[in-house]
Parts: sequence; structure tokens; C-alpha cells
Amino acid sequence: MKNLRLTAIEVDGKPRPRSTVHIGGIPVGQFPVVIAGPCGVESEAQTMEAAIAVKGAGAHMLRGGAFKPRTSPYAFQGLGVKGLQILEKARQETGLPVVTEVIDPRDVHWVAEYVDALQEGARNMQNFSLLKELGRAGKPVLLKRGMHSTIEEWLNCAEYILSEGNPDVILCERGIRTFETYTRNTMDLSAIAAAKELTHLPVIADPTHGTGRPSLILPMSLAALAAGGDGLIVEVHPNPEKALSDGDQALTPGQFSQYMQKLNSFIGVMTAWK
Amino acid sequence: MKNLRLTAIEVDGKPRPRSTVHIGGIPVGQFPVVIAGPCGVESEAQTMEAAIAVKGAGAHMLRGGAFKPRTSPYAFQGLGVKGLQILEKARQETGLPVVTEVIDPRDVHWVAEYVDALQEGARNMQNFSLLKELGRAGKPVLLKRGMHSTIEEWLNCAEYILSEGNPDVILCERGIRTFETYTRNTMDLSAIAAAKELTHLPVIADPTHGTGRPSLILPMSLAALAAGGDGLIVEVHPNPEKALSDGDQALTPGQFSQYMQKLNSFIGVMTAWK
Amino acid sequence: MKNLRLTAIEVDGKPRPRSTVHIGGIPVGQFPVVIAGPCGVESEAQTMEAAIAVKGAGAHMLRGGAFKPRTSPYAFQGLGVKGLQILEKARQETGLPVVTEVIDPRDVHWVAEYVDALQEGARNMQNFSLLKELGRAGKPVLLKRGMHSTIEEWLNCAEYILSEGNPDVILCERGIRTFETYTRNTMDLSAIAAAKELTHLPVIADPTHGTGRPSLILPMSLAALAAGGDGLIVEVHPNPEKALSDGDQALTPGQFSQYMQKLNSFIGVMTAWK
Amino acid sequence: MKNLRLTAIEVDGKPRPRSTVHIGGIPVGQFPVVIAGPCGVESEAQTMEAAIAVKGAGAHMLRGGAFKPRTSPYAFQGLGVKGLQILEKARQETGLPVVTEVIDPRDVHWVAEYVDALQEGARNMQNFSLLKELGRAGKPVLLKRGMHSTIEEWLNCAEYILSEGNPDVILCERGIRTFETYTRNTMDLSAIAAAKELTHLPVIADPTHGTGRPSLILPMSLAALAAGGDGLIVEVHPNPEKALSDGDQALTPGQFSQYMQKLNSFIGVMTAWK
Repeated sequence: MKNLRLTAIEVDGKPRPRSTVHIGGIPVGQFPVVIAGPCGVESEAQTMEAAIAVKGAGAHMLRGGAFKPRTSPYAFQGLGVKGLQILEKARQETGLPVVTEVIDPRDVHWVAEYVDALQEGARNMQNFSLLKELGRAGKPVLLKRGMHSTIEEWLNCAEYILSEGNPDVILCERGIRTFETYTRNTMDLSAIAAAKELTHLPVIADPTHGTGRPSLILPMSLAALAAGGDGLIVEVHPNPEKALSDGDQALTPGQFSQYMQKLNSFIGVMTAWK
Repeated sequence: MKNLRLTAIEVDGKPRPRSTVHIGGIPVGQFPVVIAGPCGVESEAQTMEAAIAVKGAGAHMLRGGAFKPRTSPYAFQGLGVKGLQILEKARQETGLPVVTEVIDPRDVHWVAEYVDALQEGARNMQNFSLLKELGRAGKPVLLKRGMHSTIEEWLNCAEYILSEGNPDVILCERGIRTFETYTRNTMDLSAIAAAKELTHLPVIADPTHGTGRPSLILPMSLAALAAGGDGLIVEVHPNPEKALSDGDQALTPGQFSQYMQKLNSFIGVMTAWK
Repeated sequence: MKNLRLTAIEVDGKPRPRSTVHIGGIPVGQFPVVIAGPCGVESEAQTMEAAIAVKGAGAHMLRGGAFKPRTSPYAFQGLGVKGLQILEKARQETGLPVVTEVIDPRDVHWVAEYVDALQEGARNMQNFSLLKELGRAGKPVLLKRGMHSTIEEWLNCAEYILSEGNPDVILCERGIRTFETYTRNTMDLSAIAAAKELTHLPVIADPTHGTGRPSLILPMSLAALAAGGDGLIVEVHPNPEKALSDGDQALTPGQFSQYMQKLNSFIGVMTAWK
Repeated sequence: MKNLRLTAIEVDGKPRPRSTVHIGGIPVGQFPVVIAGPCGVESEAQTMEAAIAVKGAGAHMLRGGAFKPRTSPYAFQGLGVKGLQILEKARQETGLPVVTEVIDPRDVHWVAEYVDALQEGARNMQNFSLLKELGRAGKPVLLKRGMHSTIEEWLNCAEYILSEGNPDVILCERGIRTFETYTRNTMDLSAIAAAKELTHLPVIADPTHGTGRPSLILPMSLAALAAGGDGLIVEVHPNPEKALSDGDQALTPGQFSQYMQKLNSFIGVMTAWK
């Protein structure tokens, strides 16, 4: 692939070292990390309960959306600054670094004050204004692959961020759109292996959006790590059936705890094996 | 489809009248309109030559991009404000209303001063911040369907604009991504017929991006009108092989002139037939 | 495209004349033809009623399936030889030539005795044993594009039939699978225009399977002809809601009669225009 | 999913035991199996060399095609019965059970005499005549998912085979068609996890066709097993660049030997972990 001047695994025919991206002290790229939390921040109680649960189960970071990109203008759009304040409080309580999505270039700099990493969402992958601002945000960026985007386009979006001066990009595969309807999207794990052979950046997977089915989250998490992934981002909600967005695919705290036990034991043997 | 409160063809079980969207005096929705011009504004000479050619061939409006959403950060990104000044001059010379894409919500209001209509591009279809600003822009909006977007998502994006107070939305089908590689995208003309049965908004087609092949632009233009489309947007470049973007799919002025002759004769018999 | 030795529009750099395929006296390729009838032959009464209705409305040929490729082994699989006898009787009553699908290479030669043309269905497009038998069937073949097949693969399947000695192939676009769910498939009309520029064979469209929605059949039929199509194949059932297969997309005889009126008037002006 | 009477993991609300399918003494479903060999049987020397190499590296079965479904009628179509005789000889030499594809229902019974298991290929997944014959073949069947087929359609094809009396079906995910072009297909590992939760049948993966890239075969093999897969089928050719089909994606014997070392060590830790 051409034009991946800063993102490519090689420069002038020589390999670059693999990057580690530090988020609030967690070195993504060194060992499998787990980012967990609710789809959207809905209230302090809901977020705090989720944060304490994911911390207790062993997650390394908290996710939660204060700005929600929604199909309909009449759907819950997120709590905005109030959501960010809740996330800040959750970080103080749990010590977990916080990742949140930003959807407007005007919000990048002030949102960056509240959180440890910023997410560029799948619908906005090729929002080039946003990418450029994220390249100047001074905080790590989690770059989700668009549901319609080729691997080449995805890596070029990382290049947009790096070319503005921000080297701290984590790629995230979250499923692409196909004809299949049993799963919400089709998770393309070969994109993880491909991104690892083409770039020096860490790559994680989002099995929640990738599958849309709680029962498939564990097997696809194991598979994502086996394919070379550097971590996972998983939705957890204290009360999925009452969630204001994406409730049907979130794990409960109890399910997440069981998930983390199996995942950690798998990570243990995988780490010993490598 | 739920939640299309302002966009749906019916309200409370009663049909709404079909909308006409006036762009610089051209009533889109009344008769088939043709918007033509270069992909990107590259220079005054190139744009003026294209504008005069499309005017001479009978186009109703001029298109041209001052801000280009490009896969790579190192590709030509458009001339920005200089491009808008060139478009303004082209309008003065030819009298053609001008449509241009805007890709950043911060640019909506000042760009709207220069042009007659604003385009939301396919990659940005679900850039909700941009949609909301376009809903307050005071100028008509050409809303392209995302290459990955369902008809339902597309119509909900129109609803975002209408719900902010701007009733002047024109929908544009420009091809979706599939496995087919002979054409650049797969033009989904059933989306035109569907959008006409579901909404009161005008719907046009972009056979240039839809096919990526000059030889297919005419047949797909005729087909789009036969499917109920209200117009076409076509790329014309004085020198396609030297274009800074998308040159291989643009028509030359000579090809466009022939195209317009056949198209107009078809429109003539179609109009008489209806 | 390579290897289309007999199918390509050119041979040794020189154009071939466009082919006309005669089916029971109807010259497909000379004027727009309409093939209509039920998805499956369910009974003599149902088929005869449909045949008389489509004849009365002006269809040129009768379609009807005696062998139904069905997702589930427990779904109605067609009446087999009894269905063929019913089709034969319908031809005697109405004078309409008959087209039916064959799904097993062992059936090609005896089924060909009953009908005027044989159909290779979308699911079987790359059933190469069947293609080879159809190449030796001595009857015209209607070759549907696979729902997953590129234009290049489709034309190569025509080449399989021609290379076995049967020049009488009609191509049929019937929609491809995409992420869109509003329509049953996504009808790719650019494939019609493409097949017409790449080959000398007639090309028709199937808006019934292409859209899966009765309301979209007329606009997509007009569009298919405007794109250069040589005809249409449409499902008509006397009682769609009781159909044993695909009932929700069939037209009733009354709807088909109205459809034919509009279609014929459109064909009239189109023919005069060309 | 309805209608999976014999294939579903549950019957009358009670779980069925997972099936083991014995192929020439190898119990597929008990431990991860590896099937390897050339895409096509091209000559005795080529097949024997491949067979000895894959045996030496630790594969459990030999694959090789005597009948090749090819896009063009002018491409290498396989050696037919001569190919089967070569496969038989390779089995005698190595002791490896042999799997081969059959593409015509007329061939099922006599081909079954030569080999240990029969493959239904992706292009023929919904060739229902062939499925029914395979249901009466008296030999295990490897059922590849169509490149365009939903999980539900795939499992219904298994049901076709089981409903004819053959319980010995192994499902095989081999990648689906999407817009992505970096990989030949998009391997859908969630289909493996889904098939394991929906059916009692063993499920294996084909990373060769799934990715089309030798460098991605190992990571996707590990991922397929982590997702719950029961084995792998991999193409190996003594001289890939001279292969008559699919050469650019086959592993060399040397590459395969390295692959098996890593794979077996992974299987070792995975087995201990479970």
C-alpha cells in the first residue's frame, strides 16, 4: 500500500519497531488490554455501576459515550458535557483510564481535557476534519474501521492522524456490513492480521458491535487475540434491557465477570505459548 | 419506516405534496435537472472552461469541489476558499447556480455565502454534526447516500436536516459498495424508486460515481429518470486524464454535449409520455 | 474481459452483430419482450388462470417452475413432471411459449421436450455440469446472474453454454445480495448496460426477484428498458397470498394488467424515440 | 432457525450430543484435524510430492481436486477419473484419507468409491440435486459455505444431506464475498462460532480460500480454532507458481511444515487449556 509514510511497518525497506500507545498508564501493544463499559453514559448511577463492575472483573480501561451518533435525530443523543463529567468521576472512583467517542471537530480539544483517549467512530472513519483535529489533540486515538471501509482506507485514516503529529493511534476492527443478518456485522479478523503485517500500530477488536450477539462475544474475543489482536473493547451495561442504545448486545456485569475469567485464563496460556 | 416525521410522504395517514427545492431559481422536482462540472476545482481556467462547456450543453447547475474528501492525506485536498471564489466567478460568467460539498461543520455558514446549494458527501452521510449545521444553513442541501448506507439510514439523515428547520433537501443516489469490480460502485436505482415512494423529497442520481465508467453514464442516466429520478449530477472535466481527482470517470466537454443531446431528447419523450 | 471467445461483442477486433434468440417464434432481442407467470406451478387451475391472465394482458411468454430450488428440504419442491404437463397444457391453451427452470443436469434433455426455453437459476449459475448440458440442449437458455456473481463470471457462464454449441443464450439480471434490506436484492441495472457493451447477447431483467416489492416492479421495469434491456420477466399469481413460494412479491392478474398498459405505452414512446 | 430438524443442536428443547464424523479412521470433532493438499490434482508426481509432504508435516488427511469448477470453460477442468486414480495411489502411499470435490450429481456414487469423503464446493452449495445425492452417498461430506450464503442457508444445506439419510456432514467456512479486496474473500469466523451454537456438526475453516494470502493463513488458522473450529483445510503445492489453479495462495511444503509446527504447538496449549 502506497502513501502510508508514517503508518507502514517498513520505512525505506527497513522495519519499524512496533508501537506501544500509553493510555493513562496502560501500555497498549505490550499485552492484551480490555476496555469495557456501557455504550452510552446514561446516568451517574448507571455509569458508576458499570465502571465498578468492569474494574472488579479486571478490565484495564473504561469506555462510555457522551456523544452518540444515532440513526434517527429523535433517538438518545448522549448527555454531552454532563456525560463527560460522569466519566471523569468514574475514573476518579476506579482509577480506570477513560475512552470516549468524539463526533465533531469542534469538540476535540475540550473533550480531550476530560478523558484519556478519544475514539473516532465507524460512521465517522472518513470524517477527515475530525481526523485532522484528532491528529492535534495530544491524546491517543482509537480509530474504528468503517463498516464500509477497506483496510487500505482505514490505514490511510490512521495516516491522517499521524501526519498531523499524533503518533498514538490504536486501530479497532468492529465488523463490516455484508449480506449476513444472523450477526449484526461480519467481524473481519483477517483485517487484524493484515493491519499487523502492514503497520506498526496496535490493533484491537470490538466483538460487541462485530457480532451483536452476547453469545458470540467470547469466542470472537479469543479468536481476535489468536489472530494477533492487542486487545478488546466490550460493552457492559448494568441493565442491558433498559439501555438507551444497543442494549441487546451488551453483557451484564455478571456475564462480563465470567467472560474475563475465561479470557484471562486464555491470555495466560497464549502468553506462555508465545 | 418510523421516525420520518418530516420526511415521510405521509403524515397522520394523509399524503404530503411533493416538494420542489429551488436552487438559484431552478425548481428541482418540477422537471429533470442536470448538474454538471468537475470533480474538484483545480484552477480558474479549468473550472471556467468546464462551466462554459456545461452551460453551453444545457446543464442547469454547476458542480465543483473546493474541499475534497480524499483517502490519503497526501492527495489533493481542494483549493478551499480560493476554489469557492473561482466557483463564484463561474456563476457570474455563466449564470449557473453552484453546488459544492462541505465536509466540516465549521465551514457550513461561510461556505453557504458563496454558493447556491451545499452537498453532504457519501463518506460523511452520517456525520451528524455536519447534518445539523446544514439544517441551519439557510441553503438547499444535496444529500448523497453513503456507499454503505441503507435507504432507511439515508432518509433519517434527511430527517436530521429537516428537523433543524431546513426543508430544502434533495436526495442523491450515487452507488453502493458491493463485491462487483467492473463498476466502481453498484448503482441502486431501486433506492430512487423507494425514496420516491417513502418521501416527498426530490431524488437525483450520480451516474459518474455510480458507475465509474464514462460508457455507462448515459444508459444509467436514462434508467435513473425512468425509475422516477428528478435529475442527474455528472462530472465533466476539460481534460480528464490530467484531473487531480477522479479523472478516469469524467466526461469531456464534447462527450457531455453529445450526452445532453440524447438525454434531452429522452426527457422530451418521457415528459410527453407522462 | 478475456476468454469470452464466442460471447464477446467483438471478435478479432471486429464487432459481431447483436444476436436474436427465437423462443417459440418470439424473437428476443428485436423488441422488448415480457415473460410472465407464477413462481411455481402449483396446480392446473392456478397455472391456467395465470397463463390466461398474462396472455390477456399482452405477455409474450409464460414462465412457471416445475422444479423449485428451495432453501429448506421441507419446503415445496415443485410438481416435477406433472408441473411440466401443466405447462404444456397452458401453452396449448394460450399459444404462449413456455420457459422453465431446470436444476439437475440429468433433467435437461427430457425437460427440453416439454418447453420452449430452459432457465438456469441464480443459485445454480456456476453449476458447470448443468451449463454444459444446457449447451447441448437444443433449446434457448435464460441464464440468470448469480446473486453473488460478478459480471465477468456471469458472461463466462454464457461462454460455457456457447462453447458447447448452443448460441441461444439470454442473460438475465435479477439482483445481487448487498447489505440493503428494504429490497429483497439490489438490482444492478448497470450490469445490463455492461452486458450490452461487452456481449452480443440479449439481456433481460427480473424486477420481481430484483426488488421483492410489487410497488417497485414498474419503475424498475421502465428503468431496465431505459438502460438497454431487451425484456422483462415478472411473477404473476392468481392469489399471491396463497402462493407456495414467493407470494409476497408476485403481482395479481389485475395488477399485471395495469402494469402492462403502462409498460406498453412506455415501450411505444421509447421505440419511436430510438 | 426453523426447519433444522436433524441439524439443530437441540431437538424438542433437549440438547443433542455433538457429532463426530469419521473419515478413514480420523474422528473429526474429537480434536483439531488438518486436511491439506493441492487445489487440483495435476499429475501423479505433483500430487505424490504434495501428499508425502503434508503427511510428513503431520496433516491428517489429503485434499485434491479431480473435478475443478472454473470460471472459464477454457481453464483447466481437472483430470477427472485419472485424478481420482492418482488420489487413490496417494492414499495407498501415505495412508492419508482422501477428500475430493464432486460437482455433478451423476458422479457422486462412483467417485465415492475412490475417496474417503466428498466435498460440496462453495459455488455449488445450493445445488440441491447434488446435495440430495450426497445424502445417499454413504460417505462423509464436507459442506463448504457459499461465498454468498447466509448461515441459515448453509445449515439448511446440511439439513438436505441429513434428511436423505447421511448424518456425516462437516461444515466448512471459507470466506464470503464483500467489498474488501486486500483479501480474496472475507473469512467470517463468527459463522464458525454461530454454527457451533446452532448445530451439533463439526465445523472447520479454509483459510486458504478465506484469505487468498499465504501470510494470513497461520493467524487465521489459530483464530479459527480459538473461535471453536474443529479443524482446517489448507492448500499445499510443491511448486505454487506453476500450479494450474490458485497457485498464488498455496503454501509450499516448506511453508506448510513450519505452519504445522506452530499450529501443533498452539493446539497443544489450547487442548490443555480447555
